[in-house]
Amino acid sequence: MVAEGKYEKLQDLAKRRGLFWGSYEIYGGVGGFMDIGPLGVKLKHNIEEAWRDFFIRRQGLFEIETPMTAPKCVFEASGHLESFKDPMVQCKACGRRFRADHIVKESLEITGTEAERLSLQELERAISERKIACPECGGELMKPTLFLTMFQTTIGPYSEAIGYLRPEAAQGMFTSFKRVYEQARGKLPIGIAQIGRVARNEISPRQGLIRLREFTIMEFEFFFDPEDPSCPFLPEVYDETLNLITEPLRLKGSEEPIELSVREILEKGLVKVEWLAYFMALAKRFLSKLGIPGESQRFIEKLPWERAHYSAQGFDQEVYLDRFGWVEVSGHNYRTDYDLRRHMEFSGQDMRVFKAYERPKMVDALTLKIDKANLGRSFKGHAPLIASKLETMDPEVVKRGFEEVGYIDVEGFRILPEHVQIIHESRVEGGRRFIPHVVEPSFGCERLLYATLEYAYTEREGRVILRLPKDLAPIEIAVFPLMTKDSLCERAQKIYHWLLEKGFRVEYDETGSIGRRYVRADEMGIPLAATIDYQTLEDGTVTLRDRDTWRQVRVRMEAMEDRIRRYLEGNLSFEELGRPIEKS
Amino acid sequence: MVAEGKYEKLQDLAKRRGLFWGSYEIYGGVGGFMDIGPLGVKLKHNIEEAWRDFFIRRQGLFEIETPMTAPKCVFEASGHLESFKDPMVQCKACGRRFRADHIVKESLEITGTEAERLSLQELERAISERKIACPECGGELMKPTLFLTMFQTTIGPYSEAIGYLRPEAAQGMFTSFKRVYEQARGKLPIGIAQIGRVARNEISPRQGLIRLREFTIMEFEFFFDPEDPSCPFLPEVYDETLNLITEPLRLKGSEEPIELSVREILEKGLVKVEWLAYFMALAKRFLSKLGIPGESQRFIEKLPWERAHYSAQGFDQEVYLDRFGWVEVSGHNYRTDYDLRRHMEFSGQDMRVFKAYERPKMVDALTLKIDKANLGRSFKGHAPLIASKLETMDPEVVKRGFEEVGYIDVEGFRILPEHVQIIHESRVEGGRRFIPHVVEPSFGCERLLYATLEYAYTEREGRVILRLPKDLAPIEIAVFPLMTKDSLCERAQKIYHWLLEKGFRVEYDETGSIGRRYVRADEMGIPLAATIDYQTLEDGTVTLRDRDTWRQVRVRMEAMEDRIRRYLEGNLSFEELGRPIEKS
Repeated sequence: MVAEGKYEKLQDLAKRRGLFWGSYEIYGGVGGFMDIGPLGVKLKHNIEEAWRDFFIRRQGLFEIETPMTAPKCVFEASGHLESFKDPMVQCKACGRRFRADHIVKESLEITGTEAERLSLQELERAISERKIACPECGGELMKPTLFLTMFQTTIGPYSEAIGYLRPEAAQGMFTSFKRVYEQARGKLPIGIAQIGRVARNEISPRQGLIRLREFTIMEFEFFFDPEDPSCPFLPEVYDETLNLITEPLRLKGSEEPIELSVREILEKGLVKVEWLAYFMALAKRFLSKLGIPGESQRFIEKLPWERAHYSAQGFDQEVYLDRFGWVEVSGHNYRTDYDLRRHMEFSGQDMRVFKAYERPKMVDALTLKIDKANLGRSFKGHAPLIASKLETMDPEVVKRGFEEVGYIDVEGFRILPEHVQIIHESRVEGGRRFIPHVVEPSFGCERLLYATLEYAYTEREGRVILRLPKDLAPIEIAVFPLMTKDSLCERAQKIYHWLLEKGFRVEYDETGSIGRRYVRADEMGIPLAATIDYQTLEDGTVTLRDRDTWRQVRVRMEAMEDRIRRYLEGNLSFEELGRPIEKS
Repeated sequence: MVAEGKYEKLQDLAKRRGLFWGSYEIYGGVGGFMDIGPLGVKLKHNIEEAWRDFFIRRQGLFEIETPMTAPKCVFEASGHLESFKDPMVQCKACGRRFRADHIVKESLEITGTEAERLSLQELERAISERKIACPECGGELMKPTLFLTMFQTTIGPYSEAIGYLRPEAAQGMFTSFKRVYEQARGKLPIGIAQIGRVARNEISPRQGLIRLREFTIMEFEFFFDPEDPSCPFLPEVYDETLNLITEPLRLKGSEEPIELSVREILEKGLVKVEWLAYFMALAKRFLSKLGIPGESQRFIEKLPWERAHYSAQGFDQEVYLDRFGWVEVSGHNYRTDYDLRRHMEFSGQDMRVFKAYERPKMVDALTLKIDKANLGRSFKGHAPLIASKLETMDPEVVKRGFEEVGYIDVEGFRILPEHVQIIHESRVEGGRRFIPHVVEPSFGCERLLYATLEYAYTEREGRVILRLPKDLAPIEIAVFPLMTKDSLCERAQKIYHWLLEKGFRVEYDETGSIGRRYVRADEMGIPLAATIDYQTLEDGTVTLRDRDTWRQVRVRMEAMEDRIRRYLEGNLSFEELGRPIEKS
């Protein structure tokens, strides 16, 4: 398996080479905040661009950008204000607060993921039965409570205008769904995507890039007609296999995945929506592009009580990491019509779409006929608001209310059959109005960054090589003069600027011995090093060195641009770059 | 000049074509928050990439990414907690709060920028003298006060752990300066850049994309040795001219810019630091790339009382906009050693860099010799902390303290000459330690997005054309089948997928008449439309149509990729794309 201590080795490398480090170090650091360094930003940016190309551009999604801050009403509607909470436990003696499941985890000898699944009651029982004490002072722990893990703020100068930093990018895509839908000329299915920052006010984050209070999410909401849920692109992924741990397996106590093709998965009904399965298969391929092999990936189905409040079926895509074991890097949820329906209820705006039938139909339908005079007599100034709410209500719901309890509740008012009549009628319908259903693939960018680095990290003869996929490498070519004399630097700088003009990500380095520069380049994951030596001055050829094998070839300047480009794209082998030379 | 009502026309276009709109519209909107739509995101992304290429890649800056949230101590050190405030006035009657300068602006008939420059006292006087009342209810206004315009939150589960959303990206680059400096192997000058989100809790934002509570900043801190402040790249911009409104001009009451070359500006000493002038010249060129001509740009020097608290000299780069007049799109400040010095003082960490002399020097110097035994007797357990603080202190400061008041204060303890001896000595010094100085160019991305759109907005024969620079266009080519029959769609889709594979930003559209699709493409700023017609089926040629002139040429499929690429890069004229055809 993976070598011991990769996590620690990567932290070292990260600080040395500018991949990442804890934020605000000069002030002692703040848990859950990390800076991404110069090398790390380039890699993260390349991962984002790869995601953008793979999902947004190739799947024809609509990318938007919505704010991190949202007013309270948005998260009331989305259910986050009620549900986005973590179990917290406080020490009676020192007052320190901890994530209850983290405290319990070690004592019960279970994984972090298993601990996350415990209920408040189970946590309380574990703490009292195992006599778990405060890890800081040994004091007695209080009863666990739920802590809202959204960052709260106020918007503008009024303290009552409460806002929260979004814990997912999704809500901005739901609240603006109708606008994008109309700009895209009202067709389903439609995917709306976002790459942006989110914030989660974790109680006690540890684990570096794996558990951050602020991170970049890459996610999309894919809206489809629940009566036409088929995915026409399925044949492209039918034979892709996924390592799946299904709900039935887990309920039987197994966490061993079974390997099934997408075709089998759908035939067995293991994934409820074709689009969900399609995007899971793409997610596997996307991670492979990052250098994370299929056998180090798996999809684990969430049990009903583990699922987010909006999810009817959910899978976590997990990657095996040296220190943390299986870690979620993306979530795939079938959100149904939950979010749009809730926003429709809370905002009073119609979030439904209209779909014309191929030919108009006669339908038996219920409609509501509001008795405005009566409504006015009963509710005076509130009547217009009540009427507007009634107009968007489902007649079936009203009918059921009248039948079951004799009234319905609208904005706190009791509406009786005398206020609104339910009419059965046959009428011609040109189409239907409905709330689209949604599947959501959502990727954590920093976790993918970390996983990419861990899978690229290798050692050879006691030295570190960051074997990043060539097309993701933060720097593509390093340019080195062999020595800093005899105009080698000038020539090397000229080549550096030429490669820069050609659009390559390139670095120039003349510091220290050539050997040390190779070491540095390998640690930074630079696939190619171009060395300019005396022969360059004579015949215009340069040495290209391969990061992974340390082999070298000699290539003519004129041929370099085109060959390097094809090599980085994976369309040329290293040997095809030039004439092999013996190592000096 | 510019046509009437461009702002309103752009708002219309923006909603129709997916450029931008107010966030959370279904809940009535929240001032200061805008969504960027699918077309807008692509354009914004292209502007960011252009900036990244122009400044970061070509100037060799180090891009990092630091969190939006920072703990209170960071903004105490940076001075923002004290200074990042706007004047606010509240109505006695209705309790509503307004930005005091906005309220005063209309009554005094001055520009927004002029009003921003008024002091609290001047605002109070204006309100009372002009009897300015509440614009909402007509009630009496209270005395203006200062309102902290940073969003406040708490980090983690303790209410005392206060944090703020950053109003600029700069502080993350200062607090991590030493880390990046070391990774870049300790050489000056060095630039650290960041493209990221910032938040400003404006009191009453209006003006759409121009005044946002959350926006993207593109900025860099350029660190240099104040004893070696020269910029070697100046010759590249010597002859670039800037429209400059200097402090002396403004003090004489003129806001008319003078046009001067960078050479003249530096010879006259109008800009204090060469690097500042260099980056201002680059900023002008960058805006030109966005389609904003030089004559619509100017640089206005901040008067001493207008400057940010950290700035020793500052220029706003302004662009003329139809509705708002001259609007700041970037700020160029000489921040001296202010920020690093403050972080050094507040964190106790050494933020200085070391620079070796060419040859070691004999210097007379003061050093501190701590009497640890005595320190221990006086301060017991506190002694180690005090000793560590003393070690980083400037001996000159200690000496002055002892001379002037007889003691110095360290962490609240009174340190006497018996605790620390000041020694005069001659010694060999290999180099000097100093705090680098900083110039900062800082660009508001959404304002540039808006300005780019306004300068691209044109009308022709009553129709809208978004004449975006070709290399910035959100979509580069639209592919249209002439009609939706006779396999034209299949052929067009094939060409669409082929262009997509080749990496172009491309859109396929078969909806409505070809004329309406051209209208739509022009409004979306798509430079080329490729129409697939019956002749395509016969001879494999397609029609390419130019957005700006509506001219058309016929081109063979095989030649398309290369020619289109060169055309979009600006290396081929439209006529060179193919054989001109008459308009049908």
